[in-house]
Amino acid sequence: MNYEALSKISYGLYIVSSGNADSGTGYIANTVFQITSTPAQFVVSCNKDNYTGDLIKKHNAFSVSVLEKDTPAEIFKVFGYKSGKDFEKFKHVDIKHGKTGVPIVLTSTVAYLEFTLEQAIDMGTHIMFVGKMIDAEILDDNKNPITYDYYRNEKNGSSPK
Amino acid sequence: MNYEALSKISYGLYIVSSGNADSGTGYIANTVFQITSTPAQFVVSCNKDNYTGDLIKKHNAFSVSVLEKDTPAEIFKVFGYKSGKDFEKFKHVDIKHGKTGVPIVLTSTVAYLEFTLEQAIDMGTHIMFVGKMIDAEILDDNKNPITYDYYRNEKNGSSPK
Repeated sequence: MNYEALSKISYGLYIVSSGNADSGTGYIANTVFQITSTPAQFVVSCNKDNYTGDLIKKHNAFSVSVLEKDTPAEIFKVFGYKSGKDFEKFKHVDIKHGKTGVPIVLTSTVAYLEFTLEQAIDMGTHIMFVGKMIDAEILDDNKNPITYDYYRNEKNGSSPK
Repeated sequence: MNYEALSKISYGLYIVSSGNADSGTGYIANTVFQITSTPAQFVVSCNKDNYTGDLIKKHNAFSVSVLEKDTPAEIFKVFGYKSGKDFEKFKHVDIKHGKTGVPIVLTSTVAYLEFTLEQAIDMGTHIMFVGKMIDAEILDDNKNPITYDYYRNEKNGSSPK
């Protein structure tokens, strides 16, 4: 078994956010994908230790911001390596609030999607949140989405455990 | 709501196969992703009309071949647009059989993974197959995996409904 083979699977990089008008947080995810077209449903994977997951369950909604190729390292530092429990991540980026009231990160964002929570599927260490898409917009069509492969190889990015 | 925003989500392209020593089939998937590390579990999405899905449930195992950037159009034609119910797809490619006996496509393949079926989650039009990884190998480390974005934009690839 060669675990290097797992690096051949393609992923993007996203900020998944939840909360309300008063507070919220978000985390860096690579597993965001469409699962059905009718209705448009997506799945995001979330570690159980992740504070954003608690907010998704509380507010029954979440947003996904598709990060651009030139996303600065600072964004990955803030959203990938700190916990929203004791750190106000949204002080470091521009946000707006979606139709459900959840925060949506606009900084370094190519496009965003907003979801209502349909299901939370327990996968052991992680939860799969199934969302029904209720909004989707492109912010800048000239920017390209970053891939996990590009982040790792060109930007020498690492990932937390 | 701008449905074009959905094209900003990154995917790879894969052949998901199942069957046994005597017969089998496979289909082109873009939704293949790791969901947990301990144990290494993956999810693949499969339309309910898809014959490979029937074989995955019958044989409780499946394989994933990561397609290379230069995968010929013929492969997408055979595995993406024909049903394995009435067409022998594996006559058109080289295969081997994995530890569980499932066929693994080797043609145009960068790396492959093999799974035992852990769960089949009903998502309406689709099923999410959750697999526990039991094998993984790189076939050619000089080849790059194809992305769905590259297939669509550089190879003018389309997808069936």
